[in-house]
Amino acid sequence: MLETENNKQQWEELALKTFLEMLRAKDGDLEVVAKLSEVFSDLDSLKPMATFLKEHSAGKQAFKEYPCLGNIDLNELNKLPKNSLGYCYSNHLKERGLTPLNLEQIPITNDYEFILVHIRDTHDIWHVVTGFDTDIIGEIQLEAFYVKQLRFSRFWLSLLAKNLLKTTLYNIENSEKYLNAITEGWIMGSNASPLFGIQWNQLWHLPLEDIRTSLNIKLDDKN
Amino acid sequence: MLETENNKQQWEELALKTFLEMLRAKDGDLEVVAKLSEVFSDLDSLKPMATFLKEHSAGKQAFKEYPCLGNIDLNELNKLPKNSLGYCYSNHLKERGLTPLNLEQIPITNDYEFILVHIRDTHDIWHVVTGFDTDIIGEIQLEAFYVKQLRFSRFWLSLLAKNLLKTTLYNIENSEKYLNAITEGWIMGSNASPLFGIQWNQLWHLPLEDIRTSLNIKLDDKN
Repeated sequence: MLETENNKQQWEELALKTFLEMLRAKDGDLEVVAKLSEVFSDLDSLKPMATFLKEHSAGKQAFKEYPCLGNIDLNELNKLPKNSLGYCYSNHLKERGLTPLNLEQIPITNDYEFILVHIRDTHDIWHVVTGFDTDIIGEIQLEAFYVKQLRFSRFWLSLLAKNLLKTTLYNIENSEKYLNAITEGWIMGSNASPLFGIQWNQLWHLPLEDIRTSLNIKLDDKN
Repeated sequence: MLETENNKQQWEELALKTFLEMLRAKDGDLEVVAKLSEVFSDLDSLKPMATFLKEHSAGKQAFKEYPCLGNIDLNELNKLPKNSLGYCYSNHLKERGLTPLNLEQIPITNDYEFILVHIRDTHDIWHVVTGFDTDIIGEIQLEAFYVKQLRFSRFWLSLLAKNLLKTTLYNIENSEKYLNAITEGWIMGSNASPLFGIQWNQLWHLPLEDIRTSLNIKLDDKN
């Protein structure tokens, strides 16, 4: 028991230290993001998250199959109709100089590894489907959306806390924009069907608008 | 210039240190709250806040008169009709074992001192008028309401950041309740007329419901 308490205290100290590193890091410092993700991928939060995500049929199915986007050919997706998910996704990445992560080589041996890989694998698609941009406002909107949809995510909630603290200390004039962004992401995440577990690579050819409608994602929610 | 940069850095370090003290303090530790309020009462944020608050007529007038609730007799207010602001306010305090702060003795020599005193002076009335309780959920709702209505408040935004970080580290299962509370407070604060500067002691006899209606405060916004 004492050992567990010690472990818990050690974890809390490490988590806070990493949070402060993130606070001081420049936006987009992926090394610190990876550290933050690691420290907040603790079983105490991943266990209830897995249980929660299995409550919905797409999530439940995903934990049986551990689907992965696989090796993505952006040039092929770019040939699809301009209103399709595949085209919009490839265009989103190309415009930002990004490439797919192609995570299919990562071995997945349990539900918790799947959660972590799946979220990284599909992150850019969540941007496209929600319409939330990759600037700081769009990231905050998507962070709030994740907090709603994953329910037990220390990682995404810590990013919201970090962004509010950064604004408090350095840019208080942005409070309005940041809180609007949280509210928009939270409301859209609350209205939308669960996105976790969706096999997006079976939907490349479908119109993005139809996908949004089927998921009850209304872009008006963010305006 | 170098001096200013040094000052700024020193302030940021002190602000972060106080924030971390607040994070580790027990809820309701008023000594740390006072410290936090002091460090975040910097002119860089109070100046634009004063300008912003003067944009509305009640705020503009208040900066001319520096009104104060004055010496409040709860027993007198308790004799007013049960639906009146005065009765609801005195009942709110009595139920919680609270007493009015009676801040009229504090000398106010400029707009910034007025902002700080007025917010403390009227805090319990904002609880009553918004219907936000004094438990942690109600406090978070009211913090978001303040961030909206004061626009440049490092103090209230830091409390939101602190509460999100606390949940991240210690009670991730509360994320849903906390984000709902932020959204509710933010939406109510956005829809409501400005509360800052209202001379509440002229409204004691009015029905609370009428006051809420005139301020466009709908309690449905928080459900």
